Amino acid sequence: MHPFDTAVALETVGDGTYRGRTSAPYNNMVGPFGGITAATFIRAIERHPECLGSPVSLTVNFAGPVAEGEFEISARAVRTNRSNQHWYLELVQDGAVATTATAVFGTRRETWDNTEAVAPAVPSPAETPRGNFPDAIAWAQNYEMRFVAGALNDQESPDSTETLWIRDTPPRPVDFAALTSLSDVFYPRIFQRLGRYVPAGTISLTIHYFSTPDDLEQHSDGYVLGTARARRFHQGYFDQTAELWTEGGTLLATSHQVVYYKV
Amino acid sequence: MHPFDTAVALETVGDGTYRGRTSAPYNNMVGPFGGITAATFIRAIERHPECLGSPVSLTVNFAGPVAEGEFEISARAVRTNRSNQHWYLELVQDGAVATTATAVFGTRRETWDNTEAVAPAVPSPAETPRGNFPDAIAWAQNYEMRFVAGALNDQESPDSTETLWIRDTPPRPVDFAALTSLSDVFYPRIFQRLGRYVPAGTISLTIHYFSTPDDLEQHSDGYVLGTARARRFHQGYFDQTAELWTEGGTLLATSHQVVYYKV
Repeated sequence: MHPFDTAVALETVGDGTYRGRTSAPYNNMVGPFGGITAATFIRAIERHPECLGSPVSLTVNFAGPVAEGEFEISARAVRTNRSNQHWYLELVQDGAVATTATAVFGTRRETWDNTEAVAPAVPSPAETPRGNFPDAIAWAQNYEMRFVAGALNDQESPDSTETLWIRDTPPRPVDFAALTSLSDVFYPRIFQRLGRYVPAGTISLTIHYFSTPDDLEQHSDGYVLGTARARRFHQGYFDQTAELWTEGGTLLATSHQVVYYKV
Repeated sequence: MHPFDTAVALETVGDGTYRGRTSAPYNNMVGPFGGITAATFIRAIERHPECLGSPVSLTVNFAGPVAEGEFEISARAVRTNRSNQHWYLELVQDGAVATTATAVFGTRRETWDNTEAVAPAVPSPAETPRGNFPDAIAWAQNYEMRFVAGALNDQESPDSTETLWIRDTPPRPVDFAALTSLSDVFYPRIFQRLGRYVPAGTISLTIHYFSTPDDLEQHSDGYVLGTARARRFHQGYFDQTAELWTEGGTLLATSHQVVYYKV
């Protein structure tokens, strides 16, 4: 089993209630990597017998720390329409809510289609040298990262843009859970601006999914081009917006997060 | 009382439960304007005796139609930490959930601050002619709109960018409820691309708030510069991302939404 699948594995314990367990290979500096928690919410909905279609949007609010060990996720279909479905989820540990989420799932249909955004012009993955995160950041060891801009280092930068080629290592076909996790692989943009670590953590993460199940099947385990930047750092909170592209120029998803910081 | 205040008015009916009523001046083509529903959720939290600080993020999922008349909003503080608070809300009519939301509120503190995004270079409000929405779009009559780009018309456009100066009419100091509503004033970007109306409606709206209560007090009832664009239109869903700036170049908030469409 791929370590990612172990990390997002859930056991059904009741009607819409699932038990999971934090996974050391996907730990962050403190607690689990937010991307893996978000991916586990998607997996919970996918396991639910009432699940309709595939993800359209997901918002995860990181309300408190998740401790190493078991947790329970409750997933409730608040409303199901003909072509979409609205979910509310909570991750609970020892009776306390650590994380909440809402999600919209939906079916897709052929429509007028257009991609207006433009992928960053970058060298191919083969032409981009492989980079590394420090060993202390466990989750990053599960990704092959090739930085075009914004590799983690100790240089101040006037620009918060991080752009990289990324895929699971060992390679694994990208499904919606994996895409969810990929949308959170951009380290806090304040580290890049200041060239150092400061206390920072995601408060709220929203993902918008453009890719259909067919799009992901075609993409398989190819490289994803990720790019992220911040707009404003103000009184303890900053944002980061990310785009995830295939090598062929298909926009798979975007993510938008608010991160608290102290400096 | 300003029509906006009438539209977002709530009466407490129980512990964390509030009664409101749709307001004809803020109707959209079908049902209430999404921005006023989002603003009413913020107002519900602000009225709650446990409310801590001011909005940091809000996600509203439009799960079903809201009919003209009364509705109830339930607001639950899922978790309160030292400096932030996580909320889950539902808007219910006749026993059915029409809208859900999660919000993060928080306190602010002095930190390293920086605005990296750049406001669009545009003429001043006085130099920008006033535009109009058709009378059938009631909510828009409560805003003075001066379009720099993307006025609603019947021309196809290769670019979905809408940029305008906007403020309440009659003028009203911008508070967090009003800022919330302003973040949803950009009509569906598909209308602009195609130069015509097609069935479309917001599914999920996320707002990230940069402004503090002090920032809003300084802004008062000045013009807001709004700019929005779409990245991708694909199989029934597109996105739109917006920024809201003051005339002095302060980024007040961003919003990110997913909109369904049929064409």
